[in-house]
Amino acid sequence: MTASPLSPDFNSCKQRESAFPEGLDVIFCPSSVAVIGASNRPESVGLAVFKNLLQGDFSGILYPVNLKAKSVCGVRAYPSISDIPDPVDLAVIIVPAASTPAVAREAAKKGVKGLIVISAGFRETGPAGAKIEQELLSVCRENNIRLVGPNCLGVINTDGPVGLNASFARQKAHPGNIAFISQSGALCTAVLDFAAKRNMGFSKFISVGNKADVDELALIRYLHADPLTKVIMLYVEELRHGFEFIKSVREITGGDNPTPILAIKSGRTAEGAAAVSSHTGSLAGTEAVYNALFQQSGVFRVQTIEELFDCALAFGCQPLPKSDRIAIITNAGGPGIIATDVTIHSGLQLARFSDETTEALKSHLPSTANIHNPVDVIGDAGSERYRAALKAVLNDENVDGVIFILTPQSMTEIEKTASIIPDLARKSGKPVVASFMGLMDVSRGVAILEENGIPHYPFPETAARVMGALYQHSNWIHRHHAVEFELTFDRARARKVIDESLASGIKYLGEVEGNEILAAYGFPVLPARLATTAEEAAEAVKSLGACAFKIVSPQIIHKSDVGGVKVGIKNPEEAVAAYESIMALVRKNVPEARIQGIYVQQMAAEGIEVILGINRHKVFGPLLMFGLGGIFVEIFKDVSFRLAPIRHNGAKFMVRSIKAYPMLKGARGAPLRDIEELEKCLMRLSALATENPEIAELDINPLIVHEEGSGCSIEDCRILLDPDRIC
Amino acid sequence: MTASPLSPDFNSCKQRESAFPEGLDVIFCPSSVAVIGASNRPESVGLAVFKNLLQGDFSGILYPVNLKAKSVCGVRAYPSISDIPDPVDLAVIIVPAASTPAVAREAAKKGVKGLIVISAGFRETGPAGAKIEQELLSVCRENNIRLVGPNCLGVINTDGPVGLNASFARQKAHPGNIAFISQSGALCTAVLDFAAKRNMGFSKFISVGNKADVDELALIRYLHADPLTKVIMLYVEELRHGFEFIKSVREITGGDNPTPILAIKSGRTAEGAAAVSSHTGSLAGTEAVYNALFQQSGVFRVQTIEELFDCALAFGCQPLPKSDRIAIITNAGGPGIIATDVTIHSGLQLARFSDETTEALKSHLPSTANIHNPVDVIGDAGSERYRAALKAVLNDENVDGVIFILTPQSMTEIEKTASIIPDLARKSGKPVVASFMGLMDVSRGVAILEENGIPHYPFPETAARVMGALYQHSNWIHRHHAVEFELTFDRARARKVIDESLASGIKYLGEVEGNEILAAYGFPVLPARLATTAEEAAEAVKSLGACAFKIVSPQIIHKSDVGGVKVGIKNPEEAVAAYESIMALVRKNVPEARIQGIYVQQMAAEGIEVILGINRHKVFGPLLMFGLGGIFVEIFKDVSFRLAPIRHNGAKFMVRSIKAYPMLKGARGAPLRDIEELEKCLMRLSALATENPEIAELDINPLIVHEEGSGCSIEDCRILLDPDRIC
Repeated sequence: MTASPLSPDFNSCKQRESAFPEGLDVIFCPSSVAVIGASNRPESVGLAVFKNLLQGDFSGILYPVNLKAKSVCGVRAYPSISDIPDPVDLAVIIVPAASTPAVAREAAKKGVKGLIVISAGFRETGPAGAKIEQELLSVCRENNIRLVGPNCLGVINTDGPVGLNASFARQKAHPGNIAFISQSGALCTAVLDFAAKRNMGFSKFISVGNKADVDELALIRYLHADPLTKVIMLYVEELRHGFEFIKSVREITGGDNPTPILAIKSGRTAEGAAAVSSHTGSLAGTEAVYNALFQQSGVFRVQTIEELFDCALAFGCQPLPKSDRIAIITNAGGPGIIATDVTIHSGLQLARFSDETTEALKSHLPSTANIHNPVDVIGDAGSERYRAALKAVLNDENVDGVIFILTPQSMTEIEKTASIIPDLARKSGKPVVASFMGLMDVSRGVAILEENGIPHYPFPETAARVMGALYQHSNWIHRHHAVEFELTFDRARARKVIDESLASGIKYLGEVEGNEILAAYGFPVLPARLATTAEEAAEAVKSLGACAFKIVSPQIIHKSDVGGVKVGIKNPEEAVAAYESIMALVRKNVPEARIQGIYVQQMAAEGIEVILGINRHKVFGPLLMFGLGGIFVEIFKDVSFRLAPIRHNGAKFMVRSIKAYPMLKGARGAPLRDIEELEKCLMRLSALATENPEIAELDINPLIVHEEGSGCSIEDCRILLDPDRIC
Repeated sequence: MTASPLSPDFNSCKQRESAFPEGLDVIFCPSSVAVIGASNRPESVGLAVFKNLLQGDFSGILYPVNLKAKSVCGVRAYPSISDIPDPVDLAVIIVPAASTPAVAREAAKKGVKGLIVISAGFRETGPAGAKIEQELLSVCRENNIRLVGPNCLGVINTDGPVGLNASFARQKAHPGNIAFISQSGALCTAVLDFAAKRNMGFSKFISVGNKADVDELALIRYLHADPLTKVIMLYVEELRHGFEFIKSVREITGGDNPTPILAIKSGRTAEGAAAVSSHTGSLAGTEAVYNALFQQSGVFRVQTIEELFDCALAFGCQPLPKSDRIAIITNAGGPGIIATDVTIHSGLQLARFSDETTEALKSHLPSTANIHNPVDVIGDAGSERYRAALKAVLNDENVDGVIFILTPQSMTEIEKTASIIPDLARKSGKPVVASFMGLMDVSRGVAILEENGIPHYPFPETAARVMGALYQHSNWIHRHHAVEFELTFDRARARKVIDESLASGIKYLGEVEGNEILAAYGFPVLPARLATTAEEAAEAVKSLGACAFKIVSPQIIHKSDVGGVKVGIKNPEEAVAAYESIMALVRKNVPEARIQGIYVQQMAAEGIEVILGINRHKVFGPLLMFGLGGIFVEIFKDVSFRLAPIRHNGAKFMVRSIKAYPMLKGARGAPLRDIEELEKCLMRLSALATENPEIAELDINPLIVHEEGSGCSIEDCRILLDPDRIC
């Protein structure tokens, strides 16, 4: 940051100066701001931005830059940034796109270290705009300037000592502890409106626009270090980092001093996945990839803007529940039942009260009240009865959080009841969320709740769902980290097969090379030999036992279709017959095929068939898939995804998150399967995918999972190499 | 209705007098009302009710009845109803529960034909209260009096010429076309609050309380005939009619002059299903039964109170879309993308515009606008651009409805834009739903929309979901009715087996009697014989081909466990061996068993295994279940339910609504199965369940569904009879 002689004392910025992540203080805490394109023209963006800055309690100095105007909104203007007599930290640019690179160059000369480019007309308009954007970015990179935008609404920092509103938003952002990062400028204005209505305040507010330089990841890192930000809300249409995002963000959401991140990702149905040949590819829609990315990062994904608000409100002001045991207090049966339903559906359970609590409730509530969970203080309850009930359940060790419901009835003391909640909640260290039903009648009670940090929702269902979100995040933070396996890989051996195949122009690898690569990574490939004569085949069966025969030829990918496969060959006699019959059929059906021999592979023991797969997302890199074979994948789409690399926790999750998991656990009297060995296979898959970017697609289909202790066997695999697609 | 000499002119009531369903005009359109228990005591319910009536523009005459007071709220009071000099139509009762039967008797003597009992202390408090409720109901039944309650909030009829507010609700209900029926009194007050905020009006508002007499079904019938009611909102905790509800309500929701019904049913997770022995029973939780009940009735089930409001708003003022092709108009990309996602997820599709529309959009919108669906009129759009876009897409034959999104930006003309929608929408006859994002800034635009019958939602997701609900209801109304099968049943033959079994004290029926019953209803049972000697068994195999052998003994239910089953017996020699081996094993394992012989049953041809089941819900009667066998039922719970009797449409739905349906259609290269024959089996199941109430549970597991044209075969069945459980 340029040291400005006029620099005010920025407390919150200074506190963090040691960490200074991403160097974004030049954007959020400038001492002086030049607005290039500031204007007096009514309705112009140049006027809106300058006015917002001027009226936004900015504690530094503002310099309007305008070629012709002597002043803007009464402030002395300069024809160019070079003409400003003092140092400038940040420039906000509202000039036509084509002029921005030149303007940026001039700003760089002036020593500016931060740019917010509000102008549109860049990448979003096509190749010509993209070229200008690239040029603008180059100027910034060369001069060590951080750039927000272009094509954005701007940036707001509500921090009192800074007071920066470098945006053309119509609504003001009120100070608070929620940071909002949005890829949609229009959504920003709507969000500010909603927030005002719900009494929500923001620490920082950033419209990222085309995110040529500063993107979500940079901002998340910065905001995590910001003492004023307690929760981050994210609206994204696409992200540009895969594993880097996961690696960085999972520490932020689940590390020592966690910052919860709530995200809405739109464009869920828009993207038709390109036709791909592998199982993994055809199942791995963009949705699955983003779900994996968010889950692995500990980002809580919501489905609607409303949910984003509902959750942010609670994350911003309530502690997380230690576990899932929730108490509900209500003065009406119906809403209590509704809240119970949603509580259970949100993955929580109703707390069972201790005897002490039950006694306390009995002594304070009338005999017609329900002293079990959900506690019904009955329609004629005043505030004292509510207080007794809330105190009793918050004191109970078996209660991790409380959903507090009030319906306005004739005896209800709305405001008094609202007033008792905040103190009791705070002292307990447990989360309390409230629903005072009815918007008009209860508004003064709601105001008391909101002003005192108790999140309020007009419907008890929402309160219950939000409690579920708090618990899910608590679960993420306190998740158990499974001990990592010690696996060793013969990387050189795999590399050799890949390099040689690519050198020979081979893209599809079948069993011979495929199993070689898999064996190098420690996968349980079945013993096999390549037989080039009937005698060799017989010999192989003699030593391996029952075998499958598969034709090996670079020209033949679908072996069964051409009669190239026979299974259950049990003895040398059958082996000779099978060898000859396969050869004859294949020669007849594919006369042009160059046959390398027959792959004689031991038959796998009994087990459950699963599929393991690798696919590559064009942005996020290697994606791992797991599911049960056959109809489970094809009809039920019952599969799980993770972006590679994964850790043991990730492997455990992949196995356990499919619906058919009970089948591996031994449902219907079947034996328990070797789940640990299966998890090891997924770890191997992860390493293979990460370390060998030439593997574009891989299907192990099926992997047979035997009984516990008996491991797994790979029955079939295919690999597609792509030398160019390295990501 | 008692003809009162003072009767005012009740237009809307008179209009319907010919139909007069359920005789409920005595409740909703009385000429004179006595309030028994009216009181001057502050905070009393007796005061609240009388004040509401007095201040509610009631056009008839009110008579407070109070033992001591000379007047209530300035109106002359009477010590008892008998003392009232004029005829009384309706009595509202607010006296202690124990006195209500006596009071009702007195009212009956006075000629009252309607009672609203607000007092609590009845069935909800236990057996003593239930007894009083029964007594009260008897008085009403004997005297042909309709009774609302007891234990309710009361009844409101906003109809101008009546103006009846016979409730103790704090908020007033505004007139409108939504009827609300609620089983929770507390929810009523909250609902009135919400409604006031959202500018929603009600035609009738009924708190049904314990519904001793008047219940949801009676009210739905009445409200369907009410010209002022356009949509019915329902909050239920439990219903007391099964097929009667379905039969009546499906005509109301889907008949000639349909009234949409939206319902929220709470207590979704509360009920732990009692442990039952059959597959069907264990899968048929209360949830599944209510889902079936609502689906079969055409009642649109929502999950939250908010959804109830959101949908009612649109159903009350918008036409239904003819099909699923929706246009989205927006001035911002992000919200447009979000709306697109939810539109698709709600079962709709984005309309493809005609060339004409595309041309029209091109000529009215700037070049940077998106003229394809979703139409983006761009951030700087004023109202004219919006008007052109809306007009063009509404004119397009390929568009069935429009989602209209506005985000407040600097050039946005909020009110002007709102003003253009209602007229264009009305003229088009197509539904239009709007989302003006932001609550504060856009409030005046929202008011214009609401006042002019355009449903508005703060979030575009909600607008899209509501459009999905409109389409779903349109789909229900216009559903195709499949031609019914002509099936014949030998009812006497089945009846004989059931009667004889019950007479002999036999409850569990196995193959012999089970197949006899199923055969009588035309089910495809496999040819079989009961062999009592090894020779007979050999003879049977000779004539039937490959067979399964199953021990027959009333003492043995789990045949396999005791060695009583052998399959794949192919010839007479194997038959003799199998017969002897089974007999020996069973005699050893269950020496006390009385063995009737061995059931020799032809093996079924290849096919897909499905399960058909009957279970009985204690209130709703026979419930039918369908699903694929084995893991599909046990792990994936992939089953469908319908309350019997069903029609062909119901059978089609059951087969098609399981996830594994593609397997019957011939997924993965397998042949298409005989789905029509399967549907016939479901029709037979329905008849069997409906006509034989002693069948408490029945599992056909498996039914083998062969290739198309080859029918089905029943491989195994068991029936549980219960002579007492006739419902």
